[in-house]
Amino acid sequence: MRRTRLTSERRREQLLAIGAGLFAERPYDEVWIEEVAELAEVSRGLLYHYFPTKRDFFAAVVRAESERILRLTEPDPSLGVREQLVAGLDAYLEYVQAHRTGYLVMHRAAVSVDEGIRAVFEESLAVQQQRIVDAVATVREPDEAVRIAARGWLMFVITVCLDWLERSAVSREQVRDLCARTLIAAVEMEPAGQQ
Amino acid sequence: MRRTRLTSERRREQLLAIGAGLFAERPYDEVWIEEVAELAEVSRGLLYHYFPTKRDFFAAVVRAESERILRLTEPDPSLGVREQLVAGLDAYLEYVQAHRTGYLVMHRAAVSVDEGIRAVFEESLAVQQQRIVDAVATVREPDEAVRIAARGWLMFVITVCLDWLERSAVSREQVRDLCARTLIAAVEMEPAGQQ
Repeated sequence: MRRTRLTSERRREQLLAIGAGLFAERPYDEVWIEEVAELAEVSRGLLYHYFPTKRDFFAAVVRAESERILRLTEPDPSLGVREQLVAGLDAYLEYVQAHRTGYLVMHRAAVSVDEGIRAVFEESLAVQQQRIVDAVATVREPDEAVRIAARGWLMFVITVCLDWLERSAVSREQVRDLCARTLIAAVEMEPAGQQ
Repeated sequence: MRRTRLTSERRREQLLAIGAGLFAERPYDEVWIEEVAELAEVSRGLLYHYFPTKRDFFAAVVRAESERILRLTEPDPSLGVREQLVAGLDAYLEYVQAHRTGYLVMHRAAVSVDEGIRAVFEESLAVQQQRIVDAVATVREPDEAVRIAARGWLMFVITVCLDWLERSAVSREQVRDLCARTLIAAVEMEPAGQQ
């Protein structure tokens, strides 16, 4: 067995990518951390050095995916609010298609019994919610209703994307347009062409 | 200790109501079925007669709440699609306010690790989704996008309602209007006054 020497950061990334694959395929209880070591061709000791417990490992996988998606959908405040929305949705859907497993794992975390793991998902939801509130604030005063609508809409998008991944019954453009018009209605921005 | 004799159906309802209260207050693992017997002033044997395990008991609590909400929001096909939507939302929000604990328990089931329990929630979601598709079908041909939009919107409503229960930051009318206009946009019905 030939072992490749990787830098510590690259090794960590490799382990997380393997983890994303396994956790996306199977329920948490059916993933063994020993398998990850085997697939990565490293010793269990090395794996435990990076991630002391399976829970730590799963939390790190979820955090990595969640950071990646937040980075990819970073809003560009030089754009108008509508363009920001479309650009953000395009980047998001691009990620969902390209990183199917990571996306599934992240949303498995949303329904985890482990509060610490759910918290990773909740934090990322809070960041996205605040981004929407900030974008809306450039066109109208955001109130409590906008905050609630933004949070509801994020769960709408996740539900739609999971359905889309599972059944591929609609096109990416349909998903984008569906999500865009729904947010515009939810936060009460005027539909395009009426402003 | 004075014990009240109840008919078997009434006893079952009483036990389920006590369960809804306990499961809404605490995580599943911190609810003891013995407590339920104590609060109902019945023997553990009697409780086990109705519900052999805690899992059976929890599933029955969730099923009871889920059936109640489906019954309360039964659509009236003699109404127009918009009136059906508003009437359904009003009944739904009425339930959410009046049966806060039942609502919380039902949505705790949505994130249960137990597939059988999640299935109870999923079934109720599927019924609501089909109702929306049927209502939309009276005004336009429903396609895959409508099915997906309806499911996404149901998760939107649940998210909004849980936030509303938790923080009471908006009024019931605001919640209703938010949910109504969001569905109209999601399934691409023309907004009122434009048809």
